[in-house]
Amino acid sequence: MDVMKESLNLHRKLKGKIEIKNTYDIKDKKDLSLVYTPGVASSCLAIKENPEESYQLTGRKNTVAVITDGTAVLGLGDIGPLAAMPVMEGKCAIFKEFAGINAIPIVLDTKDVDELVKTITYLAPSFGGINLEDISAPRCFEVEKRLRDILDIPVFHDDQHGTAIAVGAALINALRLIDTPISKAKVIINGAGSAGVAISRFLLELGFKNLVVCDKSGILDQNDRNINHAQLELAIDTNPNHIKGSLSDALKEANVFIGVSAGNVLNKEMIKKMDKDPIVFALANPTPEISRDDAVSAGVKIYGSGLSNMPNQINNALVFPGLFKGALAHPVKQIDFSMEKAACHALARLVSDDELTKDYIIPDVFNKDVVKVIFDAIMNVKLK
Amino acid sequence: MDVMKESLNLHRKLKGKIEIKNTYDIKDKKDLSLVYTPGVASSCLAIKENPEESYQLTGRKNTVAVITDGTAVLGLGDIGPLAAMPVMEGKCAIFKEFAGINAIPIVLDTKDVDELVKTITYLAPSFGGINLEDISAPRCFEVEKRLRDILDIPVFHDDQHGTAIAVGAALINALRLIDTPISKAKVIINGAGSAGVAISRFLLELGFKNLVVCDKSGILDQNDRNINHAQLELAIDTNPNHIKGSLSDALKEANVFIGVSAGNVLNKEMIKKMDKDPIVFALANPTPEISRDDAVSAGVKIYGSGLSNMPNQINNALVFPGLFKGALAHPVKQIDFSMEKAACHALARLVSDDELTKDYIIPDVFNKDVVKVIFDAIMNVKLK
Repeated sequence: MDVMKESLNLHRKLKGKIEIKNTYDIKDKKDLSLVYTPGVASSCLAIKENPEESYQLTGRKNTVAVITDGTAVLGLGDIGPLAAMPVMEGKCAIFKEFAGINAIPIVLDTKDVDELVKTITYLAPSFGGINLEDISAPRCFEVEKRLRDILDIPVFHDDQHGTAIAVGAALINALRLIDTPISKAKVIINGAGSAGVAISRFLLELGFKNLVVCDKSGILDQNDRNINHAQLELAIDTNPNHIKGSLSDALKEANVFIGVSAGNVLNKEMIKKMDKDPIVFALANPTPEISRDDAVSAGVKIYGSGLSNMPNQINNALVFPGLFKGALAHPVKQIDFSMEKAACHALARLVSDDELTKDYIIPDVFNKDVVKVIFDAIMNVKLK
Repeated sequence: MDVMKESLNLHRKLKGKIEIKNTYDIKDKKDLSLVYTPGVASSCLAIKENPEESYQLTGRKNTVAVITDGTAVLGLGDIGPLAAMPVMEGKCAIFKEFAGINAIPIVLDTKDVDELVKTITYLAPSFGGINLEDISAPRCFEVEKRLRDILDIPVFHDDQHGTAIAVGAALINALRLIDTPISKAKVIINGAGSAGVAISRFLLELGFKNLVVCDKSGILDQNDRNINHAQLELAIDTNPNHIKGSLSDALKEANVFIGVSAGNVLNKEMIKKMDKDPIVFALANPTPEISRDDAVSAGVKIYGSGLSNMPNQINNALVFPGLFKGALAHPVKQIDFSMEKAACHALARLVSDDELTKDYIIPDVFNKDVVKVIFDAIMNVKLK
């Protein structure tokens, strides 16, 4: 049976991948008087007196909301809130399994940016952090930025930053293997949606100098009136040699291709234009930009993808569990670039020099040390 | 140690009375591909094709949100969303313990009626039902009414209707014991907030004819410009003999006093004005309108309260678990008076003629049959 059919059957059987469990059994009236009226009033009053007590007397300190509006779900696009729920539940199950965090799936029936910001602001006292998920670009940039300005709990759009951190770690290790310094590498990012923009921004923070970002129309062009604000800023901050043209033109003598675009947009001829020892991360899901076999036969040295049945799976599930676990425990008001960089380097360093090969540039998501090293990295970040 | 101190310590130890539990262990990459990408896409697409599938492929069918704005928490008043969370978590723990329902506590940082209605409307696709909680009157009436008009999942303000159903069942049995028909009983309801209004409305539905509602200023008066819309409607629909004056005046020859007001507002002299075999439900929490000892010494025949350490605890925890369990399973679009009446009569009938005494007019909340008979009653309601 294929994975789609098997998954559908499993969902039909489970009727929900998460459930609520009480942490204290209510066996008799005494128990009821402790967890509910009249006893519960003492905790209410303690929090009213000192709002910080909400982190000690409720589950807030270990609770995250996974929130979407259903506009950019997996590669399925705008399928709406109801249809987005299976992904949100899955994400919450991963939060619990890998980091022990209680995550609550929330799907919102509005696409209006102002309404999303207001709604999530109203919801905030219920949670210790907000994981935004599958919100389409460029709306996701504004939603996240405004919420980070308003709220004093971590707000993190995983499709942007989780992906960027995982890609950053894989790329640091791939370049380590081919002995090319970050500052010298020419990197082409194909796709200028939420992931593409965030990866580009993050690689600039990591010290990459020669980035070229492409979208469907080719290399991002500052003079293109159809690009959004985030893309315009990116066009200004990247492409130092001001090259113009198609993705194929961009790839000339490039060291790295990172695809967060669509299946089969990269071919062997394009790869042959790249520099020696090309690195290709073909992250489109479920069909990558180019298959591993085609990439390798065209001379690709290091290949990574989002697929779980191949080496070098670059997956944001490597990042968000440990990152949130650290952010909640530290605790931090917001997750900033310094924390993201710390997480990225910790993830990269988990592959030792001895272990590093072209088929092992990034740890496996079931490696128990992954959450631990990222958690430690966040805990060690000094707050300003 | 008193219950307040003990409860505070328990809350500090638990750090959350509920947690998330996965229904399927994620042990390896195969599992990950079933509960998350790529397999999860099959469930997303099935729901997009047919929205009703959201009840089969996610946890929605057994998930309720417990939502407050923190404006009328227990007897503590407007303590805000953060401080309301311990009560919401407690309610969710009761939902799980008594009915196996997964309830999610949500505290909202707005008191604006329009914003509350919009926010809860946006949240609705995440849940199978909405339990409104501890929202102050008269705002709670409008919030609930508007949500019931907009949404096609059950919306139920427990402080109103849960309380009304429990009081109705206790009163039916108390009158059975003193052999007074519903249509002849003179009932005084003291307190015209959310519970008082809802109890009065529900008793009218049950066939009571002679109700008199009082608030702090005495008997509700249609000509009082300070009363709200719900109170005005109630003033019109009750008090058939147009009596005027104070609570003390209202109690003359009354059979029943129902207090949902404040501690110690009823005294022995007032009780002595009532008819023979007076029934007193003193439901203010944690201090009743009159203590059991004082009531009995003044001649009260049947005494009920909200207190767990006394006979005849009239508690809405008797109602909402079974009611929601039935409403979700049936399923019903909204919970209407016919369902509330069915639940009320089922609860009352659970006390058999043989069992009925002045100290046992309502079943114990830990009686396993309570949820079952209310569930069955809702399942048997024929939808129009």
